[in-house]
Amino acid sequence: MANLIPLTFSLSRIENLMHQVTFDPLKMEGDIITNTSMVDLKMLQPTLRIFRDVMESGLSVSPYLKVETLGSWAKIYSACSITVSGVLLKAKVPVRPKGGGVVEVIDRQPVRFTDMLMYWATTIDPIDVLISQELTSVLEMMRTGSGRILGNLQEAPMLAVERIEERLEILAEAGFSGVLDMGEPNMNVLGVSVERDHVGLSLVGGTNIVAAAMSSGIRIDTESISGLTDIREMTHIEDLL
Amino acid sequence: MANLIPLTFSLSRIENLMHQVTFDPLKMEGDIITNTSMVDLKMLQPTLRIFRDVMESGLSVSPYLKVETLGSWAKIYSACSITVSGVLLKAKVPVRPKGGGVVEVIDRQPVRFTDMLMYWATTIDPIDVLISQELTSVLEMMRTGSGRILGNLQEAPMLAVERIEERLEILAEAGFSGVLDMGEPNMNVLGVSVERDHVGLSLVGGTNIVAAAMSSGIRIDTESISGLTDIREMTHIEDLL
Repeated sequence: MANLIPLTFSLSRIENLMHQVTFDPLKMEGDIITNTSMVDLKMLQPTLRIFRDVMESGLSVSPYLKVETLGSWAKIYSACSITVSGVLLKAKVPVRPKGGGVVEVIDRQPVRFTDMLMYWATTIDPIDVLISQELTSVLEMMRTGSGRILGNLQEAPMLAVERIEERLEILAEAGFSGVLDMGEPNMNVLGVSVERDHVGLSLVGGTNIVAAAMSSGIRIDTESISGLTDIREMTHIEDLL
Repeated sequence: MANLIPLTFSLSRIENLMHQVTFDPLKMEGDIITNTSMVDLKMLQPTLRIFRDVMESGLSVSPYLKVETLGSWAKIYSACSITVSGVLLKAKVPVRPKGGGVVEVIDRQPVRFTDMLMYWATTIDPIDVLISQELTSVLEMMRTGSGRILGNLQEAPMLAVERIEERLEILAEAGFSGVLDMGEPNMNVLGVSVERDHVGLSLVGGTNIVAAAMSSGIRIDTESISGLTDIREMTHIEDLL
């Protein structure tokens, strides 16, 4: 029974990264949390075109990417929605990521979570799980207005609502968006309850771009919430196409 | 915001099934909880041979299977380890399934959980998640004595230890086994802590047979903890080969 390494649940990895976010949306500098995807270099442009379509549909967190070439592979860093939590934390909002899930959208309205995994109770990232279970229909949602996309749920004290709204506005001006729903205090968000005197904030999953590429038949390998990237090293997608 | 169907977490599905277990290991009658696998009929015999090898290595719950033919497919019902929890519940042990995970085995000794998903915090069955993430090495474990297998963790009040041990013995005589570890009261089990004044009981995942078949290259589609099957409709694997 030697070497008892404790299990690392997803929440502790997330909190480690949130704590390291230095992103300042006004100055457009500092580190954001990113997902990493690997794709065959030959497929980079088709992949980026799908990414752009998803971004224009409002199903991603930000249009900024960093692309590295490794032999015949392209490594793409894209914004993770937990970046928003990191920015809120920097503004002294004790925001707590609850879980990642699948959100049903009907006529462009997010309606409810159909699946969810709580971050503190899984060692495997919920979004990695949900992508591999092929439960989403991001392209269909973009085409018809109805479908299933990746999203997450965060929770914060209701007293922080004003501060949260102010930060979300600044983030939006900097091109960081993706709020699916923000509940009233004590009210369910997309069918999931929140703690008393708290508000729930649901954000689109940054990996919707990946889910869309996968369902277009592109082989793409992604690790979500995988590290930090300096926003100054990232480029607007329009300048990559 | 119509039609707010609450999320069904894995634990509630499990408890529904545990409640319906009528299995009596002394009389060998009643319903057990089963996993369902679909495999091409042509691959049934190779699949069953792998299943038998895994069963003989002690990495499954029971050697009893039910096989149905549906056109060119074989549908295989195999015992799920939650059956054991159902039998304990029938004996008035308030047993609580905590989570499913991956257990590292070194020199045929289960050492620790390397991954875990808590049943009450995921809507997708942990074992289905772990199988699709390809984190196990059941065949390697059988060959070398070291590797990663599927397992779960249950918790029960320490006062029930005697009753649990008595039931486990009766189950073992009926061919239902697969205890990886049973902790001392208040002690960690394979690195995962239990509630105060409780004992942890770790059982092998019934789907190790499926993980082994998959890593042998057999295409097999499984839904774990999927239903109930009458033990009298099931056949010992030796009579199927």
